[in-house]
Amino acid sequence: MAGESWLDIPAESGFSLDNIPFGIISHAGSKQPHAAVAIGSHVLDLKLFSDGGGFSGLPEAAPKILQSFSETTLNFAELGRPLHNKVREYLGLVLALDTPFARLLRDNASLRSASLVPLSHVETHLPLKVGDYTDFYVGKNHAYNVGVLFRGSDNALQPNYSHLPVGYHGRASSIIVSGTPLRRPWGQILDASKAPIHQPSRRLDIELELGAFVCRSNALGSPVPITEAEKYIFGYVLLNDWSARDIQAWEYVPLGPFNAKNFASTISAWVVLADALEPFRTEGIKNDHKVLPYLQNPTTRGVFDINLEVSLNTETSSEPSVLTRSNGKYLLWSFPQMVVHHTAGGCPLNPGDLIGSGTISGPDSGTQGSLLEITSGGSKPVILSGGESRTFLADGDEVVFRGWCERPGIGRVGFGECRGRILAPWPSGYSV
Amino acid sequence: MAGESWLDIPAESGFSLDNIPFGIISHAGSKQPHAAVAIGSHVLDLKLFSDGGGFSGLPEAAPKILQSFSETTLNFAELGRPLHNKVREYLGLVLALDTPFARLLRDNASLRSASLVPLSHVETHLPLKVGDYTDFYVGKNHAYNVGVLFRGSDNALQPNYSHLPVGYHGRASSIIVSGTPLRRPWGQILDASKAPIHQPSRRLDIELELGAFVCRSNALGSPVPITEAEKYIFGYVLLNDWSARDIQAWEYVPLGPFNAKNFASTISAWVVLADALEPFRTEGIKNDHKVLPYLQNPTTRGVFDINLEVSLNTETSSEPSVLTRSNGKYLLWSFPQMVVHHTAGGCPLNPGDLIGSGTISGPDSGTQGSLLEITSGGSKPVILSGGESRTFLADGDEVVFRGWCERPGIGRVGFGECRGRILAPWPSGYSV
Repeated sequence: MAGESWLDIPAESGFSLDNIPFGIISHAGSKQPHAAVAIGSHVLDLKLFSDGGGFSGLPEAAPKILQSFSETTLNFAELGRPLHNKVREYLGLVLALDTPFARLLRDNASLRSASLVPLSHVETHLPLKVGDYTDFYVGKNHAYNVGVLFRGSDNALQPNYSHLPVGYHGRASSIIVSGTPLRRPWGQILDASKAPIHQPSRRLDIELELGAFVCRSNALGSPVPITEAEKYIFGYVLLNDWSARDIQAWEYVPLGPFNAKNFASTISAWVVLADALEPFRTEGIKNDHKVLPYLQNPTTRGVFDINLEVSLNTETSSEPSVLTRSNGKYLLWSFPQMVVHHTAGGCPLNPGDLIGSGTISGPDSGTQGSLLEITSGGSKPVILSGGESRTFLADGDEVVFRGWCERPGIGRVGFGECRGRILAPWPSGYSV
Repeated sequence: MAGESWLDIPAESGFSLDNIPFGIISHAGSKQPHAAVAIGSHVLDLKLFSDGGGFSGLPEAAPKILQSFSETTLNFAELGRPLHNKVREYLGLVLALDTPFARLLRDNASLRSASLVPLSHVETHLPLKVGDYTDFYVGKNHAYNVGVLFRGSDNALQPNYSHLPVGYHGRASSIIVSGTPLRRPWGQILDASKAPIHQPSRRLDIELELGAFVCRSNALGSPVPITEAEKYIFGYVLLNDWSARDIQAWEYVPLGPFNAKNFASTISAWVVLADALEPFRTEGIKNDHKVLPYLQNPTTRGVFDINLEVSLNTETSSEPSVLTRSNGKYLLWSFPQMVVHHTAGGCPLNPGDLIGSGTISGPDSGTQGSLLEITSGGSKPVILSGGESRTFLADGDEVVFRGWCERPGIGRVGFGECRGRILAPWPSGYSV
């Protein structure tokens, strides 16, 4: 689609005509949460746009589709990728200069004023009701870096690592949308004498990830083949898989992380549709091992060239400090491969399921996706712009992830922000 | 309540007047799934009973409650334990001999014939829509037995085991109701030369567990104290956490089981309300270590004396073989302790969440809750009643869990069955 809009879209906006990400919003003019797309510094409220006849130029827009725009979660996802992209392309034409559909909104002042709402005037909500959440661990540089810290360089990666996308089941109920503050968790940690005590985590960390939302079901017992796997992916968000490293170190053997992760996971509010990322395909981390046939990607360009940046605002800092710059391509396995492996034994995926990549670290210093790596396990503090230092997060710290794709001749495709601020832990004895 | 019913309840039935478990059914007279209770060899269809004025003797039965009996999942759970028990006690009075409420059904032939349906005429469905599923590992005998097989007796239990209820996040989408067949999963396993291959599991196993359904929400960031934890438990079911041991052994380090478990978990259809189990409280496995204050049970009688039995029908056997007899008391931590630990960092629980105990093995031979233990890791086949032998499950095998509580002077409180049959794996290359 590309090109210019009759709407003023700032040049640096990731919500260009080539993006059109979907989300759930509410605002003063429409308080019940419902669907919207982000465009420049605005959202287009899809319920109000639809009510005002905005979809009259799209014959595929059956009542069921229009109805989905009034719902509190993006049930639109269930309608399938061909339709997602039709609607996205249509909205691009409505918003573009000099297309036959531009008149529907550009020339309709009352519909424009009702349905185009400044981003700063809307509240965003979780875009989909998350059924099951699975977090993989396919950021190989991260897995290696963490493995070195825990087990030394000879045993950093487990023997299975190159043969299958390692993952685990996460907690769906604690997934929150960007902007929701979160409380430092209490948990069991070891004191200096290695005895367990119950107290607030002292090693609260981030994990820089991408998340994919599922849009299709497979039946119990029915694996998804690699040639079909793309159809299961609605789109992508940024994901901060907050982690309490001291809780994790004590609890995680033998069944994996539990309370170290289940207190909160933050996602960005706008789902970048899978088709919007197609122009940014690239090669991931090369696998040294031969991959079993069921996991063989039909393309070597299985991942996306997405710039990722993490910055930190402290309570006293006057400007943010960039903690890391990484890229969505630093994955050993693609999301379709994760879908295939997840369902290989017959596990059903459903629309609204969220699949995380695992932490995405680049190969070099300055590109690592967790404080655990950045500070070498907490031994080398990072110095912030105002002179403060951090090993792990302090109360009041606000972490912001940003992600965007760019390529000459095409509008920027951005994810917006994935933002969360750490609240002080409850005092001892507090409970629900 | 106790006592006799005007309805013919077989003496050996676990669905006595002292039980009254809740479930979701459909039948020829009412095809949309909705709520019922089991009583003897019948169910009482709560929608039809309610529509026919059956709740006219219960002033607490507000329209919202009656409405919940028409819904496809037990939203009744959200209404809270005091109300669950009021409804259960009321239904006990309706079904008992010579109470003022007995006339409502006993003396109303048309309501009786509409709402009392033979168990054999109904189809049961999942009693609640499972939001998140968590499986703990607090059957200490099992954890020890498995630890010995994997790591030897000196390191059988990890250092954290006595300090916190070890658990992991399971997969909610593959929880199925008793009677649903399941397909042997394909997965990555190691061949004789220790190279990974993709093929159907050869070590398909059971895990004998109890599951607890949650009926209440805590807010993100708000821990549940031990004194409140009982209020979060709606009731209990039997749970078979089917496990593919060969997939598990290869995949589980470092993040825990994934495809080894997520292909299916079967639960019994009838939820035994928490209050129905109160008469059967007993002491669990004693913890040698001092427990941190947040986890200290207000009672030493934190678990339940529930007889558990596992039997196996093969395709050719003429009678079932009992594989094991265990008891619900063989747990190191109580379900309220699991609720407390689960929420200690602020993880939200919600109505419909399912919490598994982990495999419940007794201390002796003949009381172990998995084939892995019964056959010493597959090295000592078990001989079945017809002369066949098994290490792990064969295609066509049907496993049946049963559970019941009994005590003089009180009706039997049973769970019914948790039943599942293994279908042959798909041929190579099959997919959705």
